[in-house]
Amino acid sequence: MTIFDQLESEVQSYARSFPVTFDKAQGAKLYDTEGREYIDFLAGAGTLNYGHNNPVLKEALIDYLQADGIAHGLDMHTRAKQELLEAFDQCILKPRDLEYVLQFTGPTGTNAVEAAMKIARKVKGRSEILAFTNGFHGCSLGALAATGNRHHRGGSGGVSLPDVTHMPYSNYFGNDVDTIAMIDQLIEDPSSGVDQPAAVLLETVQGEGGLNAASFDWLQGIEKLCKKHDMLLIVDDIQAGCGRTGTFFSFEPAGIKPDIVTLSKSLSGFGLPFALVMMRPELDIWEPGEHNGTFRGNNHAFVTATKAIRHFWSDDKFQNEVQEKAALLKKRFQEIANMAGPANMQPKGRGMMQGLSCKDGDLAKLVITRCFELGLVIETSGAYDQVVKCLCPLTITKDELNKALDIIEQSVKDIMTKRYQKAS
Amino acid sequence: MTIFDQLESEVQSYARSFPVTFDKAQGAKLYDTEGREYIDFLAGAGTLNYGHNNPVLKEALIDYLQADGIAHGLDMHTRAKQELLEAFDQCILKPRDLEYVLQFTGPTGTNAVEAAMKIARKVKGRSEILAFTNGFHGCSLGALAATGNRHHRGGSGGVSLPDVTHMPYSNYFGNDVDTIAMIDQLIEDPSSGVDQPAAVLLETVQGEGGLNAASFDWLQGIEKLCKKHDMLLIVDDIQAGCGRTGTFFSFEPAGIKPDIVTLSKSLSGFGLPFALVMMRPELDIWEPGEHNGTFRGNNHAFVTATKAIRHFWSDDKFQNEVQEKAALLKKRFQEIANMAGPANMQPKGRGMMQGLSCKDGDLAKLVITRCFELGLVIETSGAYDQVVKCLCPLTITKDELNKALDIIEQSVKDIMTKRYQKAS
Amino acid sequence: MTIFDQLESEVQSYARSFPVTFDKAQGAKLYDTEGREYIDFLAGAGTLNYGHNNPVLKEALIDYLQADGIAHGLDMHTRAKQELLEAFDQCILKPRDLEYVLQFTGPTGTNAVEAAMKIARKVKGRSEILAFTNGFHGCSLGALAATGNRHHRGGSGGVSLPDVTHMPYSNYFGNDVDTIAMIDQLIEDPSSGVDQPAAVLLETVQGEGGLNAASFDWLQGIEKLCKKHDMLLIVDDIQAGCGRTGTFFSFEPAGIKPDIVTLSKSLSGFGLPFALVMMRPELDIWEPGEHNGTFRGNNHAFVTATKAIRHFWSDDKFQNEVQEKAALLKKRFQEIANMAGPANMQPKGRGMMQGLSCKDGDLAKLVITRCFELGLVIETSGAYDQVVKCLCPLTITKDELNKALDIIEQSVKDIMTKRYQKAS
Amino acid sequence: MTIFDQLESEVQSYARSFPVTFDKAQGAKLYDTEGREYIDFLAGAGTLNYGHNNPVLKEALIDYLQADGIAHGLDMHTRAKQELLEAFDQCILKPRDLEYVLQFTGPTGTNAVEAAMKIARKVKGRSEILAFTNGFHGCSLGALAATGNRHHRGGSGGVSLPDVTHMPYSNYFGNDVDTIAMIDQLIEDPSSGVDQPAAVLLETVQGEGGLNAASFDWLQGIEKLCKKHDMLLIVDDIQAGCGRTGTFFSFEPAGIKPDIVTLSKSLSGFGLPFALVMMRPELDIWEPGEHNGTFRGNNHAFVTATKAIRHFWSDDKFQNEVQEKAALLKKRFQEIANMAGPANMQPKGRGMMQGLSCKDGDLAKLVITRCFELGLVIETSGAYDQVVKCLCPLTITKDELNKALDIIEQSVKDIMTKRYQKAS
Repeated sequence: MTIFDQLESEVQSYARSFPVTFDKAQGAKLYDTEGREYIDFLAGAGTLNYGHNNPVLKEALIDYLQADGIAHGLDMHTRAKQELLEAFDQCILKPRDLEYVLQFTGPTGTNAVEAAMKIARKVKGRSEILAFTNGFHGCSLGALAATGNRHHRGGSGGVSLPDVTHMPYSNYFGNDVDTIAMIDQLIEDPSSGVDQPAAVLLETVQGEGGLNAASFDWLQGIEKLCKKHDMLLIVDDIQAGCGRTGTFFSFEPAGIKPDIVTLSKSLSGFGLPFALVMMRPELDIWEPGEHNGTFRGNNHAFVTATKAIRHFWSDDKFQNEVQEKAALLKKRFQEIANMAGPANMQPKGRGMMQGLSCKDGDLAKLVITRCFELGLVIETSGAYDQVVKCLCPLTITKDELNKALDIIEQSVKDIMTKRYQKAS
Repeated sequence: MTIFDQLESEVQSYARSFPVTFDKAQGAKLYDTEGREYIDFLAGAGTLNYGHNNPVLKEALIDYLQADGIAHGLDMHTRAKQELLEAFDQCILKPRDLEYVLQFTGPTGTNAVEAAMKIARKVKGRSEILAFTNGFHGCSLGALAATGNRHHRGGSGGVSLPDVTHMPYSNYFGNDVDTIAMIDQLIEDPSSGVDQPAAVLLETVQGEGGLNAASFDWLQGIEKLCKKHDMLLIVDDIQAGCGRTGTFFSFEPAGIKPDIVTLSKSLSGFGLPFALVMMRPELDIWEPGEHNGTFRGNNHAFVTATKAIRHFWSDDKFQNEVQEKAALLKKRFQEIANMAGPANMQPKGRGMMQGLSCKDGDLAKLVITRCFELGLVIETSGAYDQVVKCLCPLTITKDELNKALDIIEQSVKDIMTKRYQKAS
Repeated sequence: MTIFDQLESEVQSYARSFPVTFDKAQGAKLYDTEGREYIDFLAGAGTLNYGHNNPVLKEALIDYLQADGIAHGLDMHTRAKQELLEAFDQCILKPRDLEYVLQFTGPTGTNAVEAAMKIARKVKGRSEILAFTNGFHGCSLGALAATGNRHHRGGSGGVSLPDVTHMPYSNYFGNDVDTIAMIDQLIEDPSSGVDQPAAVLLETVQGEGGLNAASFDWLQGIEKLCKKHDMLLIVDDIQAGCGRTGTFFSFEPAGIKPDIVTLSKSLSGFGLPFALVMMRPELDIWEPGEHNGTFRGNNHAFVTATKAIRHFWSDDKFQNEVQEKAALLKKRFQEIANMAGPANMQPKGRGMMQGLSCKDGDLAKLVITRCFELGLVIETSGAYDQVVKCLCPLTITKDELNKALDIIEQSVKDIMTKRYQKAS
Repeated sequence: MTIFDQLESEVQSYARSFPVTFDKAQGAKLYDTEGREYIDFLAGAGTLNYGHNNPVLKEALIDYLQADGIAHGLDMHTRAKQELLEAFDQCILKPRDLEYVLQFTGPTGTNAVEAAMKIARKVKGRSEILAFTNGFHGCSLGALAATGNRHHRGGSGGVSLPDVTHMPYSNYFGNDVDTIAMIDQLIEDPSSGVDQPAAVLLETVQGEGGLNAASFDWLQGIEKLCKKHDMLLIVDDIQAGCGRTGTFFSFEPAGIKPDIVTLSKSLSGFGLPFALVMMRPELDIWEPGEHNGTFRGNNHAFVTATKAIRHFWSDDKFQNEVQEKAALLKKRFQEIANMAGPANMQPKGRGMMQGLSCKDGDLAKLVITRCFELGLVIETSGAYDQVVKCLCPLTITKDELNKALDIIEQSVKDIMTKRYQKAS
């Protein structure tokens, strides 16, 4: 019996898909304690957009450590935070003509979502928030109410998850049904049973929900609805942000400007816990310390985040490379899907959040299991775990990317020709 | 206008008490960007029990970084986690005859509390949880329900905070009132309006609540109540644990064994975000991934935590030193309180969570403001911010400790003789 | 200032539409204290299906009073209750092949709904209940959660109304949108954010919601959904039941058999407070007294209910007459609507719950105000109070019915030709 | 199998204690279908303060029926309501110098409580309401949250009952513990976990809770607390009002003036469903129809209520008689308790809400069972059903009263000397 079997809770999840002990990692590669190498198409569930131990960030962090820079600063002003704010302002906000103040929350995505929901309710003086089918926003009780998945919701131990209503996401009822019009009707109708919401909370691409990418039309429609019905638009950009879809914020190409944005995951650029809420300045009616958290000043993360922002987001170069890789992904997933047949697999997603929607979770499970045998760490998502999801580092080389896609192609081929028939 | 004024949310709190920009830190010392030195009696609100940038931990972390050790591992098995589990088992659990499994949650205290509350409700199939007056357990919605402070509760934006009832803490109604008997009566009485609880959630010393230290009798009484009424005992040891009160767990001297324990703050030993839930193995009925979180595998924190555990908790040496310093604190706070007069100040707390309860928040504010002028970073807590609270590193030298206490003494003297009269 | 101005709360509603003091009533006629006569097309909001002071029932009640029959019996067995149960069994349940047990609740519709929701949750061990857009089920907190109208929901004073999700009713999104398929998808999808419901709660015709009549196909579809997803089907037949739509239960012609049915309003036949819940025997897992209420044994209501059931429901005669009158209503409302033009008015409803859906609430208000001037008491309903709603006694004579419809026709004519133009 | 066994729900409660079928009733007497006579010490759980079929009220009701007076009037103005308002104003409000407006709610106590809680929350803009240990306020979800009994609370089917905190009632922790000071501390302390309440909701004598009579000092203390902390004082006088304790309102002798009062039970005087909320005029911020209910215009109840008010409350005569009978009750219950011994029985209650608190529910059950054999209908209450509770008609003759008390005395004697020993 390993120490994991003996001491770690049954709540483990990813550990079950990849039954090895990992040791080191560099760029897009993971190594286990036996020295075996894997390409990482999971990347910390989208947390390692710049790869493992990115050398530029690593050097900055080691320098900071060696200089006895402050590691933990609560919400006190530190040099590291100052430099982060400057970099964020110059490289992220100003070029995009965005005016936000930043709230450093506890360094988990769910905590940023909790803070965003709180401030929206405080500002509007109303409790109701609209979230969406297949949305995932975290597992603490406030955010869990906005999370669609029954598996997670059931974890609440039976308490109510009130004050959130789940609406149909973009294309949820198929391409022919205009869910914006439905939502509009439900809010407009004073007798629909949906109370006037304080805010709408959404992901532009639902990662955990199965790589559902909202159309830009739909996102614009939601922004209009928000203005029409005096609701704040909160974009949870925790997984889709920080370049994942090809721009720093996932909502940029849709041309919308949310009132509130949550960021986390790849924000530190190094996998370090970090989360923040951006909000239009006039929404910032917090009283001092009203929402707090011990680790809201993770200065190590500030250091690597500053470096990541300046290194990758000072110009368009990185963004353009990501978009090229996304195009490659799109092409190859389409080819693999064609090979499997449309009844078995469909390509899905946007930017570097793409994958294969399989006909069921069993097929997807076979694919990722075979991938792992062939040296690729990749996971599923979706309501039925039916979507094979690529979340590789954005910094992956084209060679590595093609190699990984070859593994997926091979795995699908193996399964479609031999294994899957057996299993069924 | 500084970048902080321009870009950071009004939610800032500590930053208002200490209007400088901090830069570096070592041991018990903080340095601002002007090079000014401060003794740190805040220590990350109890997160830096082993001091800033403890060289032993720093070295381990730099080595790990240089070797490209995995930074972010979700819940996958990694070498760093394995070593942590081994160290925790050998140095912490076994010597104390404790049998727990460990759940790695999102790395905030509030997330660990959310997980603890969830699993307790799942196990017992009941929603109600008892928490206490002046308890602080975090600001995400589930934990916030268990937090007593209206300032934080009001941040919820008006949503209900159900399924928690707040009971009077040890000595809440004075030394003559047995609150255990009251709680017993309320639970026993099928018509009291208090539903049968799934669990009782408490801190053995309430840090944010104002250094209220529960008597050991009271803690034993609560443990008995839990057995009597089939409730789980959850000790939130996030601030009081990791040696803060003189033993690794704050509940050790009371001789109780909680069913569930939450740890965070000083667990990594370096100020890195880290939180976990310990539970008796038979309570571990989680389904895979039911409660999750992106940063639940902060391997940097595992590395420093492992080192901290092995370095400080392999024998009694450190513990004994802490207890000696606690005795010194006790003696000097009593002396300072005597000087100020019992109507103005009273010593309070336990172990290295001690301080001065002032007659009101204004007096306490004057004290910490004067301390900061004299080079000491120290904060208040309590319902009225009336308690000057010492949360210095446990590794502080006796010289530093005495110097800091001299500053407090001097500040109190200054205020009692001159300033406070002016103010009033 | 009248005693009403002086002493009665602002919550008054109908009193504002009919600013007279009523005194006596017989059959379909109301008389005010000035002796003026009105035809009653409100009939206690559907409570007086057999007319005011129906002589058969009145005689039974006076006899009962004179014999000192028990008026108030809690839930004790009384002769009056025994006779009611026998009549209900023989005339209502047996002929329709329905097997239910009866729970006598507090004598308000909302109380019956509360009991129905409770027992459904108890039986299924789940909290979630589906209700519908424009549904009305009462104003106590549990039932209010299932009521769609924001006007009423706002009365809760800001508390959450959890554990109910509102789904689109039959044709809510137009005739081309199959809301059954939508609801099915939301329940089937484990990641939709809609938790598995314990029950579905609906009215077959939504009275307060604006005379929305569900199609029989849709009702059958809901019944199938309930079976498919292990949900109980609760039909709230408080307004549509007791013959209002042409059969005793409104759901009879749809060929469905609900698991639970709530009845009230016209159940006593005399306007006396009375409500009950019918449930399949195997659902009756109540513990003694678990849901109670002081007036659950209103024996006067039992006496008149027994008489009403035996008198009107021993054979098909009454039912056939009602259906004839409903056909007349349908014809004439169509004619009036045609006269006004389809852009201004549309006929709506089913059975003796029919009316005119006006283009807005202002037009509807003008109609009912003019009707009152001409001697007809009639009200509006719907999200915008835009539906002129006929809820006349089912026992109304054809002459009276035609006379009242003449008044409506005249009112519409007056308004369309003269008044409404002025107003707009 | 009787029709009751066959068709009536298991929720029946009183029917189990009195396994006969009642038929007629007059004054303080009940008669079953076999013609057997019982003295009624239950009186509709306090609903029949003026006895069954009081001839004065009966005559008024029959006259009203014969004249075709309106039975059911929604909230429309009727002559019967006008006369009630006039009588209430002249005989009840003015003589007591009370200024209230009256809201006619659905005719159940729980509905009046729901309305009172709603309006208090609306007025104060806060959700929290304080209720008390052993309080009973009804079983619809809003009122149930304020009801202490777990038996009833469990009936909610597992949904949360939020926004109410239960405080210790007068003497709950014994005579030596000042619960007012405790409540004051919990509200005053901004970190107690008790949010600032909108209102305090209490019964002055807890009927269902076991005849707990609050001391007048305590009631005055609560009134002061309400003023101090900007809370509304709601007295639920549904069981204790209408003369039950010796004055029309139970709170009169304490010299307090609640902001809101709920009345029901004996308000109609005849056992007819009727409930209302009285509130200070400035609290009446209801919008039209915001809280409604089909049976809020039960004009039969208005007729009998008017008659009852004018007949019994035009002068002090009735009140004085009640107080004399209450003194007799007190004396005799003390004697019976003395006979049983203080370890077995203690007298309890106030006014005509008195009884015997037995050492456990088994003993109380034996007493009432024996009483029923001897011709007395009487029930238990309290957390353990341990209190034998007298709720006889206030109009009972002294002879009947003594006869009933003789039966209780005899029953206690029988049980203490013979039966109870056997049973134990």
